[in-house]
Amino acid sequence: MALNSLKKMAQSGDHGRVVLVTGGAGYVGSHCILELLHAGFEVVAVDNFANAIPDESGKLPESLNRVELLTGKKCNFYQVDILDQAQLKSVFQEHSFFCIIHCAALKAVGESTSIPLAYYRTNLAGTLNLLEAAKEANVKRFVFSSSSTIYGTPQYLPMDEKHPVGVGIASPYGRSKHMVEEILQDLQKSDNNWDIIILRYFNPVGCHESGRIGEDPQGLPNNLMPFIAQVAVGRLAELKVFGSDYDTPDGTGIRDYVHVVDVAKAHVAAIKLFEKPFGLKTYNLGTGCGYSVLQVVSAFEKASDKLVKYKIVSRRVGDLATYYCDPSLAEKELGWKCQKNLADMCEDFWLWQSQNPNGFSPETNT
Amino acid sequence: MALNSLKKMAQSGDHGRVVLVTGGAGYVGSHCILELLHAGFEVVAVDNFANAIPDESGKLPESLNRVELLTGKKCNFYQVDILDQAQLKSVFQEHSFFCIIHCAALKAVGESTSIPLAYYRTNLAGTLNLLEAAKEANVKRFVFSSSSTIYGTPQYLPMDEKHPVGVGIASPYGRSKHMVEEILQDLQKSDNNWDIIILRYFNPVGCHESGRIGEDPQGLPNNLMPFIAQVAVGRLAELKVFGSDYDTPDGTGIRDYVHVVDVAKAHVAAIKLFEKPFGLKTYNLGTGCGYSVLQVVSAFEKASDKLVKYKIVSRRVGDLATYYCDPSLAEKELGWKCQKNLADMCEDFWLWQSQNPNGFSPETNT
Repeated sequence: MALNSLKKMAQSGDHGRVVLVTGGAGYVGSHCILELLHAGFEVVAVDNFANAIPDESGKLPESLNRVELLTGKKCNFYQVDILDQAQLKSVFQEHSFFCIIHCAALKAVGESTSIPLAYYRTNLAGTLNLLEAAKEANVKRFVFSSSSTIYGTPQYLPMDEKHPVGVGIASPYGRSKHMVEEILQDLQKSDNNWDIIILRYFNPVGCHESGRIGEDPQGLPNNLMPFIAQVAVGRLAELKVFGSDYDTPDGTGIRDYVHVVDVAKAHVAAIKLFEKPFGLKTYNLGTGCGYSVLQVVSAFEKASDKLVKYKIVSRRVGDLATYYCDPSLAEKELGWKCQKNLADMCEDFWLWQSQNPNGFSPETNT
Repeated sequence: MALNSLKKMAQSGDHGRVVLVTGGAGYVGSHCILELLHAGFEVVAVDNFANAIPDESGKLPESLNRVELLTGKKCNFYQVDILDQAQLKSVFQEHSFFCIIHCAALKAVGESTSIPLAYYRTNLAGTLNLLEAAKEANVKRFVFSSSSTIYGTPQYLPMDEKHPVGVGIASPYGRSKHMVEEILQDLQKSDNNWDIIILRYFNPVGCHESGRIGEDPQGLPNNLMPFIAQVAVGRLAELKVFGSDYDTPDGTGIRDYVHVVDVAKAHVAAIKLFEKPFGLKTYNLGTGCGYSVLQVVSAFEKASDKLVKYKIVSRRVGDLATYYCDPSLAEKELGWKCQKNLADMCEDFWLWQSQNPNGFSPETNT
C-alpha cells in the first residue's frame, strides 16, 4: 500500500489497523511484519539500518523487500533512529496508529557488557523518545519486546510471569529490558489510558518456512542457532559450547527455544487485546520445553544433514544452567500457543542459511 | 574566577581542581559549591533554571549569586539542560574537569508518580547524556547523588551499604535513582578507567548557617522541613502529618535527617578519593539517628519560637515507618562524619526561612 493510501486510511478515521513496528528490519520485527500483513493489518516500519542490509534500491531493508514479495503487500518504511526524537515525531504526524510494537533495541548480551552506555542509550533513552512521541500523538497502545533474561536466576521452574524479576540479571542488556518494564508499569499507573503488553521472549530461533527471511547477525553470531547454522554452511569452523559441567542431563545449558514465527504470531494475537482497555499485561513467549545445547546441535545436524563440529570450552560468566517458561497464561488469555517444534526451528533455519549463506548481503546470495 | 582564568588553568595542565557540578543552582548543588569553593576548588556549575530563581542580572541563579557573596569567590555558571547534549558537550570543550558531581535531577517523589516519563527522561536520559559527554572528554571521575529510597523496604536497621537495593522501591523517582546506580556499575565494570562514587543521601535538611541560601521549593513543598518552615513563617496554614499509627514511639514516621552542609562536606571529602584509582564506591550520607515527624516539629518550634500547627491525616501510599542508616563506612573511608544535630538543622533552616520568607524571589525578601 502506498503512502497516500495509508494516509487516506489514517485520515478517514479508520485508525484501527495501522501498526507501527520499530526495529522493523530486524529478525523479530520483520517476522512480525510478515504476520501482521498476512492478518490484514497495515504496517509502518521504522529502523535505523544499524544491523540491516539495504535492498537494490537502497531505500528498503532487504528483509522487508522480501516480506513484501512473500506477502504481495506493501510495508511503509522509514529510515529513522529512535534516538532522533524529531524524526520519530514526524512519523507520528504522517500516520494515525492503532498501536505500536516496539522491537528496536541493541540485543547482544556480551557486547552490552563492553559498551553499556550505548545499550542504555538505545534501549532506555530510545524507548523514552518513542513513548513521548506516542503520548503526544495520543497513541497509547504499546507492545514491548522484553526478554526472559529479566527473571535473573530461576527461583523455580518453569518460570511463570509471577516469578521475581530484576535480581541477579547477568548483563546490561537484560537490565535495560527490566528497566523499560518498570518504566512501562509506572507510565500505565500514572495514566490508565495506556494499554501496554509486555512480551517476554525466551529464545527465538528458526525463521519463516520459505527460508527467504531469517536471522542475519552482522559479525560473529551471538546466539546459538545462527552460530550452528554458520558452522553447518561452512562460514565458521566450529561451535564453541560454553560449559559441559552444568547440572543438566548432558551437562550443557538448557534453554526454551521458540520458533520466531510463533513469536510473531503472538504479537498478532496480543494486539487484538487492544480492542478493549485492560491496563498492563505481561506474557511469556516460549514453548515450555527446554533443550540443551547438544540437543539443538543434534537436531540441527539432522535437519541439515551436515555435521556441526563443536568444541567444549569453559563456562561463560552469567550463563545459567537451565531455564524454560510456563507459557500457559498466553494460551489462556491470547489463545496463542506454539505450533512449531525444535525440528521445525532447525529445518526452517537451515533452509534460510543454506539458501542465503551470507544472509541478506546481495552480492553473494541466491 | 573569570572564564579566561579558568581556561588558562585548564590549559596549563593543572586539571586537578576544576569541578563540574550539575544542578548547581539547586539545594544540595549550591551547598556543595559553597563548600567546594571554601576548600579551594574551582567550580563550573550547570543548571537548567527549572527550579531556580535568577539574580538581578538574570544570568546567574540567585542561589549562586549568594554563594559568590558568601565565599568571595566566583563560580562559573552555564544555563544548560543536561537533556541538551550539544550544549553539555560544549561545556566540556570549554573546560578540563578534575571530576563531576552530578546533582541535576527531578526529585519530587509524589510528582514522579504523576509524570514518570519526565522523571525518567531527566534522571536517566540526562545522566546518559552527561556520562557520554564526560567519556568523550575523558573525564572519568564521577560522583552521583543517589538516595536512601533505593533500599526499598528495610530488611534490617540501621541500613548499611550492603543492604539489598531495588526491591519494593515506592516511586518512579526512587527507581530512576536505582537505575542510574546500575548503569554506573555496568559502566565502571566495562572500563576501569572510571572512578565512581555513589552517595546515598538520607533526608537532607537545614541550610548554610548564614541563612543566605537554603531549600526553595517552587509550589507546595514536597519535603517535611520546608513545609514546617512555611507553616512557621505563615506562608502555609498547617502541616499535614501523614499517619500517626506507625509502629514507632509516637506513631509518626521516623527518618534520618542530615544537615545539608554535612552532605556538602561529604562531597568534598569524597572527591579527595579521586587522587588514586579505586573503581566504584558507595556511601550512605546520614547521621545514623532517626527522628519522628513530631520530634522534628517540636525541634523546629523550639528553634523558631513559633507554633507549628499540624493535622494528622491518613498515611501516604509507599511511606515507610522507620529508616535510618549506618554511616560508619563514610567515616572510615572518607573521614567524614556529621557535625550538626537536629537543633542545628532547625535553627539554620529557620534563619533562612525567616530572612527569606519567599525563598530566593527578589521582590519580597530581605
